[in-house]
Amino acid sequence: MDTSTVDRRHLDFMLYDVLGVDALCAYPRYAAHSRETFDAAISLAQQLAAEKFLPHNRKADLEEPRLVDGKVALIPEIAEAVRAFGEAGFTAALADEARGGMQLPFVVTAACDALFCAANGGTIAYPTLARAAANLLEVYATDEQKARYMQPILEGRYFGTMCLSEPHAGSSLADITTRAEPHDDGSYRLTGAKMWISAGDHELGENIVHLVLARIAGAPAGVRGISLFIVPRWRVAADGTRGARNDVRLAGLNHKLGQRASVNTFLKFGEAGDCEAWLVGAPHHGLAYMFHMMNEERIGVGISAIQQACASWRYALAYARERRQGRHPDQKDPSTPAVPLVEHADVRRMLLAQKCYVEGGQMLAFHAALLVDRQRDADAQTRDEAAALLELLTPIVKAWCSEYALRANDLAIQVLGGYGYTRDYPVEQCWRDNRINPIHEGTNGIQALDLLGRKALLHDGAALRLLLGEIATTCTAAASDAELAPFAQELAVKARLVGDTTLAVAQRMGRGEVRRALANASDYLLLVGHVAVAWCWLRMALVARRLAPAATGSERDFLDGKVQACRFWFATELPKVELAAKLVATADGSAFEMKDAWF
Amino acid sequence: MDTSTVDRRHLDFMLYDVLGVDALCAYPRYAAHSRETFDAAISLAQQLAAEKFLPHNRKADLEEPRLVDGKVALIPEIAEAVRAFGEAGFTAALADEARGGMQLPFVVTAACDALFCAANGGTIAYPTLARAAANLLEVYATDEQKARYMQPILEGRYFGTMCLSEPHAGSSLADITTRAEPHDDGSYRLTGAKMWISAGDHELGENIVHLVLARIAGAPAGVRGISLFIVPRWRVAADGTRGARNDVRLAGLNHKLGQRASVNTFLKFGEAGDCEAWLVGAPHHGLAYMFHMMNEERIGVGISAIQQACASWRYALAYARERRQGRHPDQKDPSTPAVPLVEHADVRRMLLAQKCYVEGGQMLAFHAALLVDRQRDADAQTRDEAAALLELLTPIVKAWCSEYALRANDLAIQVLGGYGYTRDYPVEQCWRDNRINPIHEGTNGIQALDLLGRKALLHDGAALRLLLGEIATTCTAAASDAELAPFAQELAVKARLVGDTTLAVAQRMGRGEVRRALANASDYLLLVGHVAVAWCWLRMALVARRLAPAATGSERDFLDGKVQACRFWFATELPKVELAAKLVATADGSAFEMKDAWF
Repeated sequence: MDTSTVDRRHLDFMLYDVLGVDALCAYPRYAAHSRETFDAAISLAQQLAAEKFLPHNRKADLEEPRLVDGKVALIPEIAEAVRAFGEAGFTAALADEARGGMQLPFVVTAACDALFCAANGGTIAYPTLARAAANLLEVYATDEQKARYMQPILEGRYFGTMCLSEPHAGSSLADITTRAEPHDDGSYRLTGAKMWISAGDHELGENIVHLVLARIAGAPAGVRGISLFIVPRWRVAADGTRGARNDVRLAGLNHKLGQRASVNTFLKFGEAGDCEAWLVGAPHHGLAYMFHMMNEERIGVGISAIQQACASWRYALAYARERRQGRHPDQKDPSTPAVPLVEHADVRRMLLAQKCYVEGGQMLAFHAALLVDRQRDADAQTRDEAAALLELLTPIVKAWCSEYALRANDLAIQVLGGYGYTRDYPVEQCWRDNRINPIHEGTNGIQALDLLGRKALLHDGAALRLLLGEIATTCTAAASDAELAPFAQELAVKARLVGDTTLAVAQRMGRGEVRRALANASDYLLLVGHVAVAWCWLRMALVARRLAPAATGSERDFLDGKVQACRFWFATELPKVELAAKLVATADGSAFEMKDAWF
Repeated sequence: MDTSTVDRRHLDFMLYDVLGVDALCAYPRYAAHSRETFDAAISLAQQLAAEKFLPHNRKADLEEPRLVDGKVALIPEIAEAVRAFGEAGFTAALADEARGGMQLPFVVTAACDALFCAANGGTIAYPTLARAAANLLEVYATDEQKARYMQPILEGRYFGTMCLSEPHAGSSLADITTRAEPHDDGSYRLTGAKMWISAGDHELGENIVHLVLARIAGAPAGVRGISLFIVPRWRVAADGTRGARNDVRLAGLNHKLGQRASVNTFLKFGEAGDCEAWLVGAPHHGLAYMFHMMNEERIGVGISAIQQACASWRYALAYARERRQGRHPDQKDPSTPAVPLVEHADVRRMLLAQKCYVEGGQMLAFHAALLVDRQRDADAQTRDEAAALLELLTPIVKAWCSEYALRANDLAIQVLGGYGYTRDYPVEQCWRDNRINPIHEGTNGIQALDLLGRKALLHDGAALRLLLGEIATTCTAAASDAELAPFAQELAVKARLVGDTTLAVAQRMGRGEVRRALANASDYLLLVGHVAVAWCWLRMALVARRLAPAATGSERDFLDGKVQACRFWFATELPKVELAAKLVATADGSAFEMKDAWF
């Protein structure tokens, strides 16, 4: 039974045949790269994921992090995997060559990460959080801060965290109360508590660089009064030597439903009044800096979610090809042999739905990842458009992918039946592990508000118009292919529906009915998400149709499968947007008007 | 924070205001009963559930059944709860008074069970499986078998199981291979292995009565060659004294995602060649007998699923009323106080969706449960119609309730955010526990085939016409209420859609396109399920509108909530049936035509 968690042909198809990421090598920053170097990095990631991450995925779930003598005890395989990741250069995948980095494009790095995520979504959090912290410091920290805190992360010696939430303020960052007092030496002293901190304490490296949101005394209320601080777990001298423990205390571990490889902590800062912290950038701009990190993290959440769905889908597919059970409904003779599960129409439906969620979501997420790189284009308009589209797509990638990835996980369990409900098979863990993704890095409800209340309407809907323009381009191309023309027509209709629905919301907001206009934001996210994924499927089908005439054997099957999946999406999923659009456009009030006392 | 798992007012509303179950007291069998005795039983169940079942729900999850010296070790609270359940008379709730039973209607027993299910879905499996075995024996066993095996179950001394699946044959019972050889004394000797046996081995009582499906040597192939046997764990002498251990061996425990209170076993029969078994009824009719048990079990699965959704919904509701987080989107002043979660439109939407799934599903399941009792009506037509409707509704109750209950669990986690992902809050366990319900007692895919391929078309669609007739009656009643008239109109349209879609399938099957006609059976189940639940909501709204003028305060709020939930269902869920109906009626082939090699 083939139980690999990834289909490399499909990954290559997305990256090269559809997205053409090798074109990035024309950018000066990536001039030293080629498709060969990209492939080498991806192949190395694939090998390390299979050899160092996948084997302990279940063990890490069974033996979750514990506190032993005040320290976080992890199974040793985690340290080994994280070390291999760092030594292979993946922690510094994005960093400049001058700093010892691979200087890879974001989208290629994302492809590498995706392979680790499919193998083990928990362990991978340690080095990728560290890398995200390094990325932030690269942009906003001083040279001195970079040397002291960022360079050791790139070298795999230090780790990093993002400390945003507090016990009383998860989604509502405006309400954080951690405070910072200026200190004589130019540093600050922090006091407060932070909740849900992934990788918040462990012994994997020499140090942990916490990036912490806090308020400087006298700061404005709300999110405009939040500053960003570096809080090292161990203080670091100017020459890089490690000093005394800083006043950061591990106050507890959170015991989670899944993702148990990644320790989740409750941290207290400054209980002894001596938590040294260093301001990053200007005071009161911390949230904007953090969102630099958060936005790329949200693309990462979408990819991670889809990859955990990919893993369970591929397992379910292999299982359905092997396991024989029952007969077709028109086969009444019980002496005929049982057929493989995959031959049952309902099982095939469940497998195809998973394929559509997984590969459609991957396509969308990698498209967004490529937009991160396009912001380095020589052409200013290309850069601006990429930035605007990325802003728009980020909440969709985060929320849509995490929601539908979970549905795919659910279907994988169903394909396995009773076996899927046991801990002897991997699919239940995928489902549990993945349940965090609609919640963290901004709940999906908040992503929907971000999309409808802000990004879709920004600059008179400029970013949305760009997206609809790209969709129209695809529709035009598909219209000349007789087999795809009906889909092109359908997608064009649905794209207009997106525009009309958005306009209706904008008008209602213009009349001051803000709350009501945004009440069905989740339906709006489904609308735009499903249309965007339809666009992704049509793009894949277009490329598949272009390549098919020259293809034979399994390659031809691979390409035909893309067209069939596109057909399934347009027949069974895309029509769902009509109801969603209606609820949004009419501002259906059936939930909005529900009173608390009526429950 | 109110964390009770049940809303008694709502339960009473369903049972008395909508279903009028007190009318059952006019049946001779229930003549000794009254609303007071029903209420007394329900109140006792509510108390026992809160005192004996709920408190160890988490502990039983954390400390799952283990094998100790070859015996199943359970936490002691399970034995205590099960004993209390039996001593209160619930194991014999359905049994004749002459046998020491309560002689309660099925629907009232189901209401009692529902309260235990909401408190602890695992522990309740032991006595309810025993009761189901007793019910089957009551109908099909000889008096001698009843005295020896059934009576001790009713007395709470023996337990019972259903042994259908085998490791290679879960859904496909035609393929079971356990075989029975006749023995000199009129008994049989069994040889085989059974998988997924809930409560298959434990030390809770004096004995376990396994009801086992097996083939007698020379039996026809397939399901028409399956016989039903009593296989006691300990042999029982004619005078009821317990004899030697029978040749049934516990071969292993299944380690599950949830429902851990209930031990799930792999059993081997006749390894030593001496597994004594007693035939129940006639040879080769075993599957029909077992389905007597299975059908009521499937109603039970639906109720259990919905109740575990009810528990997490009520927890999420209480949490959302207490937890303050963020502000409305038009409130830009961060110095204003944070609002309770329930005030956020998207949270309210998630809570109302849960209410609709839970209360709509409950209404449907209790309606079906009442049909079990109506089969005792004095009027033959009433009996026949109840039987036909029950047959039709059973797969819907099982599959629809288990699917949408799980969605409700998922939404409850989302309402709690990060806390919902931790094991410190109960909602994640509800989700895990509930994941079995779409799988066991016939997967939901098989329920869909049972509905579309058999029950909806049986006798020229007679049962379906009965259901549509009942729906039409409700529509007529609602049409005269100005507020409900639009819903009545909408439901009538959707009921016609059910009829038309079914006809299209029948015609296609008549043309011999059986596989293709049934390929989208899951969509058909969604169609009929959503329409049936819309009917349930309209009935509840009708009753609520009738009672509302005389109601004040919290009672008025309660009734207004029903009408608003009905509105939400018709606005946001019922329209989804259009796509489902289209896929079924046109026999959309986008999944059916997918080839294995294309994945």
